[in-house]
Amino acid sequence: MQHTDTIIKNGYIVTINPEMDIIENGALAIDNGKILAIGTTEEIEKNYSSNKVIDASTKIVMPGFINGHTHIAMTYLRGYADDLLLHSWLQDYIWPAEARFVKAKFVYDASYHACAELIKNGITMINDMYFYSKETARAATKAGMRAILGEGILDFPMAFHKTPESMINYAIEGHEEFKDNELIDFAITPHSIYTCSKKILITAAEKARAYNMLIHTHLSETKKEVDDCLEQHGVRPVQYLDSIGFLGKDVSLAHGVWIDNDEQKLLAEKGVGVNICTECNLKLSSGFAPIKGYKENGVIISLATDGVASNNNLSILDEMDMTSKVHKAINNDPTFLNAEEVVRMVTIDAAKIFNKEDKIGSLEVGKKADIILLERNKLENMPMYNVYSHLVYTMHSESVQDVIINGKVLMQDRKLVEIDEDELFDKARFYQKELQEAKSD
Amino acid sequence: MQHTDTIIKNGYIVTINPEMDIIENGALAIDNGKILAIGTTEEIEKNYSSNKVIDASTKIVMPGFINGHTHIAMTYLRGYADDLLLHSWLQDYIWPAEARFVKAKFVYDASYHACAELIKNGITMINDMYFYSKETARAATKAGMRAILGEGILDFPMAFHKTPESMINYAIEGHEEFKDNELIDFAITPHSIYTCSKKILITAAEKARAYNMLIHTHLSETKKEVDDCLEQHGVRPVQYLDSIGFLGKDVSLAHGVWIDNDEQKLLAEKGVGVNICTECNLKLSSGFAPIKGYKENGVIISLATDGVASNNNLSILDEMDMTSKVHKAINNDPTFLNAEEVVRMVTIDAAKIFNKEDKIGSLEVGKKADIILLERNKLENMPMYNVYSHLVYTMHSESVQDVIINGKVLMQDRKLVEIDEDELFDKARFYQKELQEAKSD
Repeated sequence: MQHTDTIIKNGYIVTINPEMDIIENGALAIDNGKILAIGTTEEIEKNYSSNKVIDASTKIVMPGFINGHTHIAMTYLRGYADDLLLHSWLQDYIWPAEARFVKAKFVYDASYHACAELIKNGITMINDMYFYSKETARAATKAGMRAILGEGILDFPMAFHKTPESMINYAIEGHEEFKDNELIDFAITPHSIYTCSKKILITAAEKARAYNMLIHTHLSETKKEVDDCLEQHGVRPVQYLDSIGFLGKDVSLAHGVWIDNDEQKLLAEKGVGVNICTECNLKLSSGFAPIKGYKENGVIISLATDGVASNNNLSILDEMDMTSKVHKAINNDPTFLNAEEVVRMVTIDAAKIFNKEDKIGSLEVGKKADIILLERNKLENMPMYNVYSHLVYTMHSESVQDVIINGKVLMQDRKLVEIDEDELFDKARFYQKELQEAKSD
Repeated sequence: MQHTDTIIKNGYIVTINPEMDIIENGALAIDNGKILAIGTTEEIEKNYSSNKVIDASTKIVMPGFINGHTHIAMTYLRGYADDLLLHSWLQDYIWPAEARFVKAKFVYDASYHACAELIKNGITMINDMYFYSKETARAATKAGMRAILGEGILDFPMAFHKTPESMINYAIEGHEEFKDNELIDFAITPHSIYTCSKKILITAAEKARAYNMLIHTHLSETKKEVDDCLEQHGVRPVQYLDSIGFLGKDVSLAHGVWIDNDEQKLLAEKGVGVNICTECNLKLSSGFAPIKGYKENGVIISLATDGVASNNNLSILDEMDMTSKVHKAINNDPTFLNAEEVVRMVTIDAAKIFNKEDKIGSLEVGKKADIILLERNKLENMPMYNVYSHLVYTMHSESVQDVIINGKVLMQDRKLVEIDEDELFDKARFYQKELQEAKSD
């Protein structure tokens, strides 16, 4: 009998392993942040003991959701301005507010609030891009959130960084500083092809590869971006990035709304994954990502909320629901994007996009213990004939009861274990007042 | 000082009155099921007292949501079959299950479960169509839910009714039987133009008008329905219904996906409202309702979940979010369907569709006390700059804390006051087992 840190027993385990095994009355033994064993409750109880046993009798046990593109430090700008044209939203509201308020402390506080909110949404890893990203790293570490973090690289001076090289160096510093932190990776994240020169895009990719860091950028969010690229470079965005040696298995894209068939083939060939932000793209009328083409061409795709200034929450379950329904309709095929596929997108497929499929994205022996438990005993979750259908079409984040990241229990029975929500409310009210006053200036 | 049944005080009151007034630190006095007074907390406390005072300090207080088209007795078929073509979904799964299981007790039990679920979603009135609708009336009465109920009229024999006339008479009986029930109205509800003959549609409308009952039917859900109507009657569905004298201010439609500009004008002229079921229409690939045209032509529109067999939950907040985002995208205009409009759609506009705008749909003196309280102190609801934006783009039903229908408190701090959820879970498990076994037969 081996003693372990934690045992979860009696659960309805949705493994997302290659066979998509479901274990009824299943159990997991967790030790040292990893999954040590998985099987029926009987099997696990025979071989493992623990002082911390979680009874999952009425619960679904599955890998945590991965949110493939966020700007979590924008929490305090949630709902700051809505129902506007993109340029007015950015130029009249978001950018002025950011220029005035975004400082290290703002980023730390907003990121910490967002981490608490992410946990309540069952999200166990994010891929984030913003400014002062080392502050976000500190907040994520404190909250226990797994995160890939990038410092947005722009080819013009900002309050915090005078040059794009300084932005790249900041991320490399973060990479060095957080090297031994099991939760945090730093990535190199040029903001976009329209805010970065060719030279900086090339430098960014070279530096990332020199330090073995992931690369992430916004691409082809709007039609205008593609038209401008064609005018300026004579080729479409994916071809442009390919021509400068930017693309590779270490690259992932956000949005990818306006990507044509040839570009999709190129992404598949280069192993570049796309994080689709359905709700944000709809709300800002950017368009519908070509999910059918991505699937046909073998591009790995996942889902993401983007920042709450444009969505306006961090629920991946919402993205799953909306993406599946909307893409059935635009493809005129109710069998398109079935529920099981959508659940894979936000777990194992997302893990593949970030080259982390050996560590996260499924419940398998040796993987990190990033696990969520969802309650079946709720009016809206009953009856349940197919767990994937429920996850995509029925459930809300309210069903997420327990969240474990890297083996640590962060939420139990919907209560955050270490984070004081009242403190976060006070902080949010403080920033709301400041931002509200600025708006009426 | 006048004594009243209930006082709600210190709330952020979203009235949805014609001026769309918001009362910060507002209060309401409720007596005999109605709103007796509304104003600031100071004003109300000066003039009214009560033994039951609800403190809404951290809450939004607003009229309950209206769900304009449901089949609540289908609860136990939630997620029974998904990701299928419409005809296979109906013919291979839903109809056989209904033929075998739908009996009076099934309808009562499923409806009672659904009423509990509706309350948890902040819904204070539904417009429902199904079979054994008097059982649904009894379940809604027991739960305290306001409901307009119709017996689906089909022009072929069913287990329960051998003729469509019997279906019409059943609804008229319900109308008589529940005449003094403040919560329940019966309506006459021909299922559709493709399941009812011209003769039965005419009889249905005549009978409804003789008894002063509302009329509701599915219309133009799919393109095929329109094509078939053109072939059979030589005109489109709205023109067809108009030609037989069916349309009027007492009629409301469900779906209305394939309605052209001329039909929209005709609906506006006749005062016929449309309850749009966005999620269901997307999930079954039926199409995108012409919301822009409806608005331009002055057709009153509202939102509805349809049944949970095709959606798969009863959240109106989800419908609001998805409708607004999807229609911004298909109209290529992020300013389209702003948040305030969407909130009106599911409150006062829905009330107008059912000719109940003098009774419900807003918080005004003399109206029924159908009121919901939503929690502001939640991570995902902070900060809040615009309450409408939060309702449409941010909030989930988890934020609904308290629900009052006809002056009676049905949910307090997210706990149902009189309904035992554990009993409902047991029942749901029982039916799930039966239905599951039937599926594998």
